[in-house]
Amino acid sequence: MTPSGQPRSPRADTMNRMVNEATGNLPATRATLSEVAALANVSVATVSKVLNGRSGVSDETRSRIESLLEERNYNRRLSAQSTAPLIEVLCFEIDSPFAGAAISGIERAAREQGIGVVVASAEDSHLPGPGWVDGVLRRQPLGIILVAALLPEKDLARLRSRAIPIVMMDPYGAPATDAPSIGSADWNGGFLATQHLIQLGHKRIAIITGPESMMASTARLSGYRAALEAAGIGVRRDYIRPGTFHRDDGVIEGRELLSAPEPPSAIFASSDLQALGVYEAARSLGLRIPDDLSVVGYDDLAIAQWVGPPLTTVRVPLAEMAEQAMHLVLRLRDEPELAFSRVDMATSLVVRESSTAPRA
Amino acid sequence: MTPSGQPRSPRADTMNRMVNEATGNLPATRATLSEVAALANVSVATVSKVLNGRSGVSDETRSRIESLLEERNYNRRLSAQSTAPLIEVLCFEIDSPFAGAAISGIERAAREQGIGVVVASAEDSHLPGPGWVDGVLRRQPLGIILVAALLPEKDLARLRSRAIPIVMMDPYGAPATDAPSIGSADWNGGFLATQHLIQLGHKRIAIITGPESMMASTARLSGYRAALEAAGIGVRRDYIRPGTFHRDDGVIEGRELLSAPEPPSAIFASSDLQALGVYEAARSLGLRIPDDLSVVGYDDLAIAQWVGPPLTTVRVPLAEMAEQAMHLVLRLRDEPELAFSRVDMATSLVVRESSTAPRA
Repeated sequence: MTPSGQPRSPRADTMNRMVNEATGNLPATRATLSEVAALANVSVATVSKVLNGRSGVSDETRSRIESLLEERNYNRRLSAQSTAPLIEVLCFEIDSPFAGAAISGIERAAREQGIGVVVASAEDSHLPGPGWVDGVLRRQPLGIILVAALLPEKDLARLRSRAIPIVMMDPYGAPATDAPSIGSADWNGGFLATQHLIQLGHKRIAIITGPESMMASTARLSGYRAALEAAGIGVRRDYIRPGTFHRDDGVIEGRELLSAPEPPSAIFASSDLQALGVYEAARSLGLRIPDDLSVVGYDDLAIAQWVGPPLTTVRVPLAEMAEQAMHLVLRLRDEPELAFSRVDMATSLVVRESSTAPRA
Repeated sequence: MTPSGQPRSPRADTMNRMVNEATGNLPATRATLSEVAALANVSVATVSKVLNGRSGVSDETRSRIESLLEERNYNRRLSAQSTAPLIEVLCFEIDSPFAGAAISGIERAAREQGIGVVVASAEDSHLPGPGWVDGVLRRQPLGIILVAALLPEKDLARLRSRAIPIVMMDPYGAPATDAPSIGSADWNGGFLATQHLIQLGHKRIAIITGPESMMASTARLSGYRAALEAAGIGVRRDYIRPGTFHRDDGVIEGRELLSAPEPPSAIFASSDLQALGVYEAARSLGLRIPDDLSVVGYDDLAIAQWVGPPLTTVRVPLAEMAEQAMHLVLRLRDEPELAFSRVDMATSLVVRESSTAPRA
């Protein structure tokens, strides 16, 4: 029981621990709004403006108040439980098939808990549009899920000052951030795809990669190499082609590979869209899939089943990843030590009609 | 100027007009929360619970209070402007390519106005999942956009009692509701697609339709008939095949059409996914597109460009429709007479590589 005679909730205990861990020598109590105002030598109204992401405060003052809020572990959510809890999702290319699967999974997991999902599209360079952080601060969400999106340090600092948890759902292995993340087993995926082609009898197997800057690309390529080496098949540099996960990679690199003096009998594309590009390259050269060329994709988006022939691909469990991201972002409020975690979900091979034994 | 000396805003005038129109003989003032509580013979706290979609109120009492709220034009939004405005989007099959395009358009239009977009997926039969309306009432949105989704009368009544505007973005011409809607010119789309095939020289042109219950299907079919008749080509019953906008329609009906004694030289599919099914049917029969068969789709989803060969299709301007839906739902607060409107946006033909002249 607390001194006031009220039962002490497990949540309150966790909060104290969280505050203790985070503040080190600072007292294990949260600053009130008026304390922060006094420390910053401004009015309570000004602190309130900053908290709510409203205008009318100079950059210097805003930044000073935000530092104090972070230092003193101010978190309004803890005192005022919202009646309409929200999760924010910032998603790269919100109209891509990939984003659709992610949002759908998050929405399903959120709905079960009565939480609303606010979506926003990340723009060029995977960053949010102007004003996104202001909107988030006004809406006071329970947490934020970044889907293949990134935040600049300035935005991260503002969100940290309100102790809003952030989780990355990161199937592309974007450049590392501090945020905990839910990824998938990329090396295994690359290994499985290549091993499948080897087991069918292929020896001339090419790969089109994703962006070098992304861990996912490097891991898939590494899995490809490892599978070839395990089978005693030499890795050919001319069979490793650069790409960016887009369809055009498959069209351009596919045509080059298939027009070479020693064309591959199978191509492993690092995304389903790339694989569709390879389909187009083969079609333009009069080659049939899988008779003349085997193709394996990566992601298992819905379109993988719809194309002709249906695509053999590596399944990235987007719905499960989305569910895990939701659970993680909610747990982070009570268990801040999770902030250093990364979870990689298992990938698996889905065999359809685009892969078969090579011509004798 | 008002009696109190304050300038009277155009918004206030509109509100009074709206209230007058809606209430008939009732006084043109809104009921307060305590007035509604007195009329319902319950506490203010109970009215508040109902307003916020919270539990602890019997169905009978809830229904009585909601009737009073509607009758008396209670609208909390008008008094307490939210600092974090939201729009709710209820979307059928949220992970479909179609939904992605719609949500992306709505999000872009909302972001420009600093409005957050809360998304939810409609389930079977295009209806929301359990608890959706409760969540909406707690979040107090500016308005609701239904994307190919429907609401049961019970839910509509609860939303009406809070004067929350609803707009349908309705490319499929779902069964009519009272809500204003943004559609697209389906008859024209059907006409354009068929006319294009006729101009290429085709005379044996089949159609696979959408669900009979949807106006969009009927209008597209009617456009097909009209184009044939305008060209003096007889309409053949065996060339009109039933479908539901899904890919399987194209596989099954496509195979039947192409295996018939007098197969069509061109197929007009009522959705892009259906067209992909026709691709698969042609592939399984060893027919090449467009050499052996011309195909035209409908929607112009992103995948229409990605498939091989890239698909000739009718473009439904989803991004523009989404933007219009956003504008309409915001205007409805001030201009309730728009509640009886339907806007149909123009469709257009996008010629790619799946259509050509028939073999001589």
